[in-house]
Amino acid sequence: MCNNCQYTIHGRHHHFGWDNSFQPAETVAPGSTLKFECLDSGAGHYHPGSTVADVSTMDFSRVNPVSGPIFVDGARPGDVLKVTIHEFEPSGFGWTANIPGFGLLADDFKEPALALWNYNPSTLEPALFGQHARVPLKPFAGTIGVAPAEKGLHSVVPPRRVGGNLDIRDIAAGTTLYLPVEVEGALFSIGDTHAAQGDGEVCGTAIESQMNVALTLDLIRDTPLKMPRFTTPGPVTRHLDAKGYEVTTGIGPDLWDGAKAALSNMIDLLCQTQNLNPVDAYMLCSVCGDLRISEIVDQPNWVVSFYFPRSVFE
Amino acid sequence: MCNNCQYTIHGRHHHFGWDNSFQPAETVAPGSTLKFECLDSGAGHYHPGSTVADVSTMDFSRVNPVSGPIFVDGARPGDVLKVTIHEFEPSGFGWTANIPGFGLLADDFKEPALALWNYNPSTLEPALFGQHARVPLKPFAGTIGVAPAEKGLHSVVPPRRVGGNLDIRDIAAGTTLYLPVEVEGALFSIGDTHAAQGDGEVCGTAIESQMNVALTLDLIRDTPLKMPRFTTPGPVTRHLDAKGYEVTTGIGPDLWDGAKAALSNMIDLLCQTQNLNPVDAYMLCSVCGDLRISEIVDQPNWVVSFYFPRSVFE
Repeated sequence: MCNNCQYTIHGRHHHFGWDNSFQPAETVAPGSTLKFECLDSGAGHYHPGSTVADVSTMDFSRVNPVSGPIFVDGARPGDVLKVTIHEFEPSGFGWTANIPGFGLLADDFKEPALALWNYNPSTLEPALFGQHARVPLKPFAGTIGVAPAEKGLHSVVPPRRVGGNLDIRDIAAGTTLYLPVEVEGALFSIGDTHAAQGDGEVCGTAIESQMNVALTLDLIRDTPLKMPRFTTPGPVTRHLDAKGYEVTTGIGPDLWDGAKAALSNMIDLLCQTQNLNPVDAYMLCSVCGDLRISEIVDQPNWVVSFYFPRSVFE
Repeated sequence: MCNNCQYTIHGRHHHFGWDNSFQPAETVAPGSTLKFECLDSGAGHYHPGSTVADVSTMDFSRVNPVSGPIFVDGARPGDVLKVTIHEFEPSGFGWTANIPGFGLLADDFKEPALALWNYNPSTLEPALFGQHARVPLKPFAGTIGVAPAEKGLHSVVPPRRVGGNLDIRDIAAGTTLYLPVEVEGALFSIGDTHAAQGDGEVCGTAIESQMNVALTLDLIRDTPLKMPRFTTPGPVTRHLDAKGYEVTTGIGPDLWDGAKAALSNMIDLLCQTQNLNPVDAYMLCSVCGDLRISEIVDQPNWVVSFYFPRSVFE
């Protein structure tokens, strides 16, 4: 990986939360290419011998470590940090958990659950879940961002206008991400790598997996940007869309309730047709199913749809 | 079209709104294949010579006429109506309007606007918008549903648990739609055909276009279904995703505000990079851009993204 990387940011250079007073792990010139060793979102809590009992012993002060921060020489508030993502070097081990109190259907799934994944980090062929589901993989970084202007320590959990825990499935290899710079040097960090996730990350976790990432950091001067944006070099769903989708809907006056209904309806469908138990269906939806807003204008009812790729079972 | 259609439902058999006391246009056996002549959502109000002044004279008691209803022999509450969509026969003319008071950004776009479309109904090659945007086409029916159980006349505008004005882009040729039956005979109707639309239909209209539709109506007995669901035979975005996407985000604690922010950010981007005026960018987003929920679990902030296909300008 990364024949032309000028820097390696080792995994020991990680931090928890965002704070613009953190000391930089490295200072680089605009245009530099770096390799980041990222920890997984559990900071190594899970391993191939883990059981569901380990979900209860997670230390929430240590979730989503990010590697960095990187001080980009000359970056100033009002600039844009251009992040070109080149490559992921995945580990081959991952985990997905239902963590009580967390996830779109937290009220329905109150018991912890854990799925462990072993996948081929070279071929990235679809990874087996349970007896017969095969989940297409597409590595990306769930947390990628820069330090906010506000002083002090800020939780890593919520994404912000400077990025962070965006959990956007398509910020993958080849994508160029644009982040608003709010502090001198930008202070870029990355982590929370995922081997696969659907739009929504509905159960609260993806295929959480340690990876290395190679990327280039560059600056665009004096171009105010309100929130992150990105450009993909090509289609974003071809790793999973070849066989089409099963789609359920949630219809009503509230997008949140619509999302919950669409997901619940998909879980019911997967339990009926694929003989899954509900929490397994929930976790499977999180790693490969997509929440889309089909219609947001036909007052007073909106349509949120949940798209599940048929290739997983065909 | 429709060599094996057993019935033709002519355009004069249309109705406005849903009412389970409407007389059926036809009674058919389960398994029947029908051709529907659908009016456009403006009931013919717009024509190739229309101007923006015509937006103000639309009669809202006559929007979204649907052709039908069809009494499916033997259908009972608790059954599922299985609708297999075979083919669309588009007209080649269409319109998109910004209608004041309607649309996700109604507060920002208070003036009427109108775009007219001419497209090749045989080849369905991308349709020209303005000077240089080319919008990929994918015909579908915006309104497709059955009569609700509740007596009386119900507006056609909001979609319901029995379907209706779903405006789901992927209920296209080849898709199988499942609708909950709530009254004897199901009373199926269809209309509001679109030549193209993005997920969200953000400005409130798509490429509204008169078409004929061929489909088969069948029954699945005694299988309660809470809300519509559907199965697509293959990928749903290959008509537009080859060049990838420009993506903007809306980050915050409310999905509605997030959707508005993501869309506003995309309109700003299109105005800057493609020299569009804002209302044209808004209408263009409505006919080909997609609202997706990227993340709905990282409390307290969710991420809604707006995906605009780069093929439109490349």
